[in-house]
Amino acid sequence: MTLRAGAIVQSLGGELFGDPDRQITRLAPLETAQPTELSYLVNPRLAQQLANTQAGCVIVGPAMAEAARSRGDCIVCDDPHLYFARVTQLWRRLHHVAPRSRIHPSAVVEEGAFVHPTAVVGALSFVGRGARIGADTVIKERVTIGEDCVLGARCLVQSGAVIGGDGFGFASQDGAWIKIEQLGAVRIGDDVEIGANTCVDRGALDDTVIEDGVKLDNLIQIGHNTHIGKHTAMAGCVGVAGSARIGAYCTVGGAGMIAGHLSIADHVHVSAGSLVSRSITKPGHYTGFFPIDDNGEWEKNAATLRQLHRLRERVRQLERLMADSEE
Amino acid sequence: MTLRAGAIVQSLGGELFGDPDRQITRLAPLETAQPTELSYLVNPRLAQQLANTQAGCVIVGPAMAEAARSRGDCIVCDDPHLYFARVTQLWRRLHHVAPRSRIHPSAVVEEGAFVHPTAVVGALSFVGRGARIGADTVIKERVTIGEDCVLGARCLVQSGAVIGGDGFGFASQDGAWIKIEQLGAVRIGDDVEIGANTCVDRGALDDTVIEDGVKLDNLIQIGHNTHIGKHTAMAGCVGVAGSARIGAYCTVGGAGMIAGHLSIADHVHVSAGSLVSRSITKPGHYTGFFPIDDNGEWEKNAATLRQLHRLRERVRQLERLMADSEE
Amino acid sequence: MTLRAGAIVQSLGGELFGDPDRQITRLAPLETAQPTELSYLVNPRLAQQLANTQAGCVIVGPAMAEAARSRGDCIVCDDPHLYFARVTQLWRRLHHVAPRSRIHPSAVVEEGAFVHPTAVVGALSFVGRGARIGADTVIKERVTIGEDCVLGARCLVQSGAVIGGDGFGFASQDGAWIKIEQLGAVRIGDDVEIGANTCVDRGALDDTVIEDGVKLDNLIQIGHNTHIGKHTAMAGCVGVAGSARIGAYCTVGGAGMIAGHLSIADHVHVSAGSLVSRSITKPGHYTGFFPIDDNGEWEKNAATLRQLHRLRERVRQLERLMADSEE
Repeated sequence: MTLRAGAIVQSLGGELFGDPDRQITRLAPLETAQPTELSYLVNPRLAQQLANTQAGCVIVGPAMAEAARSRGDCIVCDDPHLYFARVTQLWRRLHHVAPRSRIHPSAVVEEGAFVHPTAVVGALSFVGRGARIGADTVIKERVTIGEDCVLGARCLVQSGAVIGGDGFGFASQDGAWIKIEQLGAVRIGDDVEIGANTCVDRGALDDTVIEDGVKLDNLIQIGHNTHIGKHTAMAGCVGVAGSARIGAYCTVGGAGMIAGHLSIADHVHVSAGSLVSRSITKPGHYTGFFPIDDNGEWEKNAATLRQLHRLRERVRQLERLMADSEE
Repeated sequence: MTLRAGAIVQSLGGELFGDPDRQITRLAPLETAQPTELSYLVNPRLAQQLANTQAGCVIVGPAMAEAARSRGDCIVCDDPHLYFARVTQLWRRLHHVAPRSRIHPSAVVEEGAFVHPTAVVGALSFVGRGARIGADTVIKERVTIGEDCVLGARCLVQSGAVIGGDGFGFASQDGAWIKIEQLGAVRIGDDVEIGANTCVDRGALDDTVIEDGVKLDNLIQIGHNTHIGKHTAMAGCVGVAGSARIGAYCTVGGAGMIAGHLSIADHVHVSAGSLVSRSITKPGHYTGFFPIDDNGEWEKNAATLRQLHRLRERVRQLERLMADSEE
Repeated sequence: MTLRAGAIVQSLGGELFGDPDRQITRLAPLETAQPTELSYLVNPRLAQQLANTQAGCVIVGPAMAEAARSRGDCIVCDDPHLYFARVTQLWRRLHHVAPRSRIHPSAVVEEGAFVHPTAVVGALSFVGRGARIGADTVIKERVTIGEDCVLGARCLVQSGAVIGGDGFGFASQDGAWIKIEQLGAVRIGDDVEIGANTCVDRGALDDTVIEDGVKLDNLIQIGHNTHIGKHTAMAGCVGVAGSARIGAYCTVGGAGMIAGHLSIADHVHVSAGSLVSRSITKPGHYTGFFPIDDNGEWEKNAATLRQLHRLRERVRQLERLMADSEE
C-alpha cells in the first residue's frame, strides 16, 4: 500500500519539489525514515536531522525549503505540522479497513438509542436507552455510552471509555452516605475525542457538558456537572472534580487536577502534576508541583519545608534584631 | 412523567406549604429551575438564590422556612440535603425503566457464581467462578467481578470497574520479577458503591476487604490486602497501595494517594492531591500538595525550594553571628 | 485441595525440617496462619512473628533456620521470598480451573489476528485485525488488544486493559486540534504483565515498545512512542507521557508521573507521587512530593512557600547587612 508524492500535494496542496511519481511506502520520523518513506520537519532547530535523514521526501515550512531542496525531494507548505496531520489522515483513509458493520454484532444498543447511519459502534460496546450518537462518530471497542447521553458529529471514543456513569453525589446521615440519584446526562459536542478508559460522569440534575473540539486523553476523570469549553485539551490521568467550569482553549498537563466548584478562564494552561485548588480568572500558565530531586536532597528540603513558616519567623526576628542594632 | 408535591411528603415526610396537587416535572438547581420544577436549598448563605429562583417548589430547612414560604410553595424538613437525596431516589424509582432481564443475555456469568435473584448484572459484564453477588446489588454494564469475589447487598458497581484483578506482587530474582500468584479474593460489604473504571485488586493470601457503606468514585486503584473501614468515601483518581489499613468514616480527596503498609485512623480526612506517606494515628484533616501559582512565580519558588535546607543553614549562621555580635 | 510439604520441596528444592506428609491446606501470612497452613518469613526483623505464629510450616532463609526449627516444621531455602513466589505458582497450577476454551466464545477476535494455540483470550475481550498474541500469554476478561499490536510469550493482561488506543497527537489550526492519525502499533515483549484498566497507546509512526519482563500495575497510562526497558516495574496510577524513553530495571512508585520526550537511565527509582520533569541520566533514587502534614501546618507552610524566593532575598539582605556591620 503506497501513495504517490504527487497525489499527496494534489489532495492537500503545498509545493512538491522532486519526483511526483515517487511511491511513498510509509510515514516515518526523520531519524528512522528510509528512502521510500515520507517524513516532516517542524522545528528548525532540528535542521541537522534534516541533513542526516534518509527519508525519500520531507515536508518542510518555507524557512527550511532551501535546505530541504538541496538534500532531495520535499514538499513545502505553510505549516508542516498541520500538513503532516493531514497526510496521516489521508494515509489512514487509504489504508484503514472499514468495519464490516456499522454496529458490531457483539455491541449492545438498547431500544430507544439513536445511532446515526454514518456512525460506528465497535465490538462489545454498550449504548444505553435514549442515547444519541451523531454523524460519523466512531465508538471504538468496549465503550459505554450511558442512558440519555448525547454525542455530536465526528467524535471518536477510545476503548474502555465510560460516558455517563453516575456522578459521585451523596448526602450524609449519621456518618453514612445516602445516594443522590444522578438524574442528568452527558452532552458532548462535535469533533470531541475521548481517550481510553476515560470517564465522564452524568450530571446530578443538569447535564455534564463537553463543548465542540475538546480532546481528552486516556484515564481522565470528569466529574458531574462539569462544563468544558471548546477546544480545550487534557493530557492523560487528569482529574476534574464536580461542577468545575473550565474555559475554552485551555490545556491541562498530565495528572493535573482541578478541584470542584471552581472556574477557569479561557486560555489557561495548567502544567502537568499541578492541583488547581482555586479559580483562575486570568489567562496564563500555572504550575504547582514539587520539583523532583535526588532522594537525599529531597528529604533534607522536605524536612525543612515542614518548618518553613517557623523559618520565616526566624528571618523576621533577625530583621528586627538587625534593625535594633543599627539604631 | 410527573410527581405530585403531595405525594412527595406522603412518601418522605416533611411539611408541605402550598398546593399538594402541584405537578413536579423535574428536579433542578435553584438557578435554572422552572415553575413546574422542584429545587432545594442547603446552604443558608445562598438565600439570595432562593429569592430569585423560579422553582415551583423548594425544599428547605427550618431556618429558611419563613423566607421560602413568603416566596411560594415549599417543603420544610430537618435536613434538606438528605431530603433531596431521598427525592432523587423516589424520582428514579418512578422513572427508571427496569432492565428486562436480571442477568443481561450478553453478560457472562461463569458456572459456580451466585447472583442473588434480586441482583442485576448488566450488559457485557463478567462474573467469575465462585463469585457471589448479594441481594439488590446492581452490576452495571461492562464490569468484571473476578473469581471468588463477594459483594454484599445493595451495592452498585459502575461500568468498567474491575473487582478482583491480580494484586501487584513479585519476588525479585537477578533483577527479573517472579510473580507471586494472588490467591486471595475481594470481600465487599453492603451498600458499597464502586465507580467507573475503578480497580479493586484481590489479596495475595488473605482477602482485600471493603466494609459496609464505602463509596469509591471513578478511576480509583485499591491495592491488594487493603482494608477500608465502613462509610469511608474516596473521590476520583485516588490510589491506595497494598496492605494499607484505612479507618472508618474517612474521606480522601481526588487524586489523594495512600502509600502501602500503613494505617490510617478513623475520621481522617485527606485533601485532594496529597500523598499519605506515613501512618496517621489521629483523626483530623491532612494536606500535602504544592500550591499552584503563576508559572513564573512557581519557577522562582521551586528553584529556591531545592536550596531550602541550605537556606535554613544560612539563617542558622546569621543567628549565630547575631548572637555573637550581641555578646 | 491440599499439598504435601514433601511435594513442595520435591518440586522447588530447599530443605524440609519436619513431616513430609504434613498436608498444607492454604498459604497464609504468619499472623493469621493456622496449624494446617504454610507461611513464610522474609524479614528477620519479624522474628517475633515467627515465634508467635500457629503456621504448620514456615519457609525461612538460612539465618532464621535455627529459630524456625526450634518452633516446628520449616522449609529452609536461600531466598524465602522467591521460594514463596514459586509456591504460590505451584499452588495455583494445582488449584486453578483451566478455562474451558482457549478463546472464550464471547470474545471477538478479528480476522487476521493471530492467537498462539497455547494463549488464552478471556470472555468479552477484543483482539483486533493483525494483532499477535504469543505462546502461553493470558488475556483476561474485557481486554482490548488493538489492531496490529503484538504481545510476546507468557504475558498476562488484566481485565479492562487497553493496548493500542490512539496516542494523543494533534496539530493546532486556529486554536482547534487536528488529529494526527496514529499509524504505529504497540510491541510488547515476553513475560510482561499489564494491570487492570491500564492503557498503552499505539505510536504515531513508530511503535510504542515495552521490553521483556516489564510489570505494569493498574490504571497506568503509557503514552505513544514510549520505550520501556526490560524488567522495569511501575505501581498503580503512574502516567508516562509520549516519547519518554525509560531504562531497564527501573521502578516508579504509585502515581509517579514521567513527562514526555525525556530519558531515564537504567536502575532509576522514582518515588510515589513524584513528577519527573527532566531527564535522569544517573541511576539512583529520586523524589519530589509535598510532605503531608496537619492541614493547619500545611496552610502556614504553603503560604510561606509562595513567598520563598522573597524569603531568600531577605536572607541575602541580612547577610549583606551582617557583613557590613562586621567590617
